[in-house]
Amino acid sequence: MARVIVDVMPKPEILDPQGKAVHGALPRLGFTGVTDVRQGKRFELEVEQADEATLAEIDRIAGTLLSNPVIEDYTVRVEVDA
Amino acid sequence: MARVIVDVMPKPEILDPQGKAVHGALPRLGFTGVTDVRQGKRFELEVEQADEATLAEIDRIAGTLLSNPVIEDYTVRVEVDA
Repeated sequence: MARVIVDVMPKPEILDPQGKAVHGALPRLGFTGVTDVRQGKRFELEVEQADEATLAEIDRIAGTLLSNPVIEDYTVRVEVDA
Repeated sequence: MARVIVDVMPKPEILDPQGKAVHGALPRLGFTGVTDVRQGKRFELEVEQADEATLAEIDRIAGTLLSNPVIEDYTVRVEVDA
């Protein structure tokens, strides 16, 4: 078994209302020192084996089902256990 | 400037309906080989300096504003540029 992580984030030029809401709430809660927040999604996919074919399939999954390529970027990586 | 990543995932014992929905959709779209999917959130926080005080503050932010500690686990890490 292996775990593959897909991170999906709004593209830099796209407005991110969720991140803006978190950022706006921080000073009201007494937190300073954070200059920007962006919020995205993280997927953990369990696979039998993280070979080339599986990673190519996960790349297609990430680009179609997990993200909207018009407004989001994604990265795929195999999680290495510490 | 430094970037701190906060990953928020549902606890292992908590049902994850979003992940289940993604997992259920995969075979219908012709994707096989993924045995489980869990969905969480990823936050990117920009800070002036990722020193100890800032990371302690971000840890408090992650445990209060960004996650629900009853049902979610979070990790905080400083992003290292490749």
